[in-house]
Amino acid sequence: MESSIQVLLVAGTHGNEINAPWLFQHWNENSDFLSIKGVNVITVIGNPAALNQGRRYIDRDLNRSFSPELLTSLEVVDQDVQRAREMIDLFGENGVKPCNIAIDFHSTTAAMGTCLVVYGRRKADLALAALIQHNLGLPIYLHEGDKKQTGFLVEAWPCGLVVEIGPVPQGLLDSKIINQTRIAVEVVLDQISKVKTNKAVFPDQIFVHRHLRSLDFPRNSDGVPDAVIHPNLQGKDWRPIKEGTPLFLKFDGTAVHFDLNESLVPVFINEAAYSEKNIAMSLTISEKWPFSKEWERSLRKLILN
Amino acid sequence: MESSIQVLLVAGTHGNEINAPWLFQHWNENSDFLSIKGVNVITVIGNPAALNQGRRYIDRDLNRSFSPELLTSLEVVDQDVQRAREMIDLFGENGVKPCNIAIDFHSTTAAMGTCLVVYGRRKADLALAALIQHNLGLPIYLHEGDKKQTGFLVEAWPCGLVVEIGPVPQGLLDSKIINQTRIAVEVVLDQISKVKTNKAVFPDQIFVHRHLRSLDFPRNSDGVPDAVIHPNLQGKDWRPIKEGTPLFLKFDGTAVHFDLNESLVPVFINEAAYSEKNIAMSLTISEKWPFSKEWERSLRKLILN
Repeated sequence: MESSIQVLLVAGTHGNEINAPWLFQHWNENSDFLSIKGVNVITVIGNPAALNQGRRYIDRDLNRSFSPELLTSLEVVDQDVQRAREMIDLFGENGVKPCNIAIDFHSTTAAMGTCLVVYGRRKADLALAALIQHNLGLPIYLHEGDKKQTGFLVEAWPCGLVVEIGPVPQGLLDSKIINQTRIAVEVVLDQISKVKTNKAVFPDQIFVHRHLRSLDFPRNSDGVPDAVIHPNLQGKDWRPIKEGTPLFLKFDGTAVHFDLNESLVPVFINEAAYSEKNIAMSLTISEKWPFSKEWERSLRKLILN
Repeated sequence: MESSIQVLLVAGTHGNEINAPWLFQHWNENSDFLSIKGVNVITVIGNPAALNQGRRYIDRDLNRSFSPELLTSLEVVDQDVQRAREMIDLFGENGVKPCNIAIDFHSTTAAMGTCLVVYGRRKADLALAALIQHNLGLPIYLHEGDKKQTGFLVEAWPCGLVVEIGPVPQGLLDSKIINQTRIAVEVVLDQISKVKTNKAVFPDQIFVHRHLRSLDFPRNSDGVPDAVIHPNLQGKDWRPIKEGTPLFLKFDGTAVHFDLNESLVPVFINEAAYSEKNIAMSLTISEKWPFSKEWERSLRKLILN
């Protein structure tokens, strides 16, 4: 009997990140993409209303709307939360077309290249991320312990990863970004297919950049940012900073330096959408973890159930 | 008696082009900028409502809302047109604080560097553009004969230019772009000041890139774009194309080439905001014109009136 694993590929969770949606829409028109390599794939536009308007979201960031509180609240009825509920009704693990794995394709104005974002330390997530890293050499940003940012889409599925690709402006189609997205989709599905057919080769270790905290822009007494990302740091995501590295440039021409005696790795430097969240960049620590057989079992169980 | 010339500097005519607004806001807080070099300067945020929302405009592109039809229509009452009327009431040549010259600072996702945009062939515009080009070596995009695009802000003042700076994503502060904006402001005011004190040195000629037409993206039978800017053309604004130059890359991997036997210069390649206007790029022809003394007289008359 065929395995019932279904993989949900999401694009346009943010309506102004348009490269993955363009790819998905043309795929659906042009190919029998839905049965690639024996994996049942469903593609969906996360926030079609926002995509139509070229905006990140309508009322509230859809990719912060999947927290249990928002999903069950009787008071919150804005469009984006309703869309979150609808996606779970349709494609959640107990939905109309149940999916076990969700991969959510984003783009960023930061120079992140292609990378994976893992939320917390769910075993199946780590196993799948390790497999993809082992094949594509992608960096992994492990987002955890950030109480100000919760309710990410992929957390509402038993296993889920975000693929982030940049730099690209919001609302702009770029053939390089589309190509990077296409490669990421192919490798993700290929690896899931290999787990299903018992051909996946799991690595011995995983390299993660673990989230420590985010930095806001320096602000004046009115709360208005009075500095921008330092030109030497712009576009330098994934490169370690140390004490004395210039982080910001103030209006008066003076630099604000990193003042701690540690070596950290900045990510999402100057992501345009994060200024409203008061995030100029996030700081991570680079770690190498041994790969756990438990992670592998967890992923196998999901895929072969 | 002091000359009454007042120069209006506009930033944030598009609310998601945030670098010039940031510069202006900090200037107003930090310096006696308003009386620079004997020129009376008024700075203003073009579309504060859109800037607050991080959107290009609210109901309608403010920088297409200054046509006589829209300004006088009794039927059109959207926010942006009302703002256009308000700006003219406040800062128009017969306004509360009358200004003769308007300089409108924009940014673009296209790799335009710093450049000037001149609308039509008004003599004072050409004189001022030639002066700035002579001092900063900037390219000039002469926009004319485009019936689909009218109602630009600067056309509502006796003399006016747009300064366009890119590439920069929408909604993102970039120290390089801010610095380019700052230099452009300084040179513009310096040259106006020199005209006033009779120290301006006008060139013998002006180099313009004259607008011929715009190109839309290739579209499928449903009208959906099925190609993106070719990777070899992305970021190559101002570089001539000829017969056979690849312009677009289709979803199926084939290229769409330039098929005319002429050498033209593309500008505003992949400007994110122009996709809603069905413009993938604009094509110009590079021309060298002799400088006319009439232009100089027209600008002098405005500044020394």
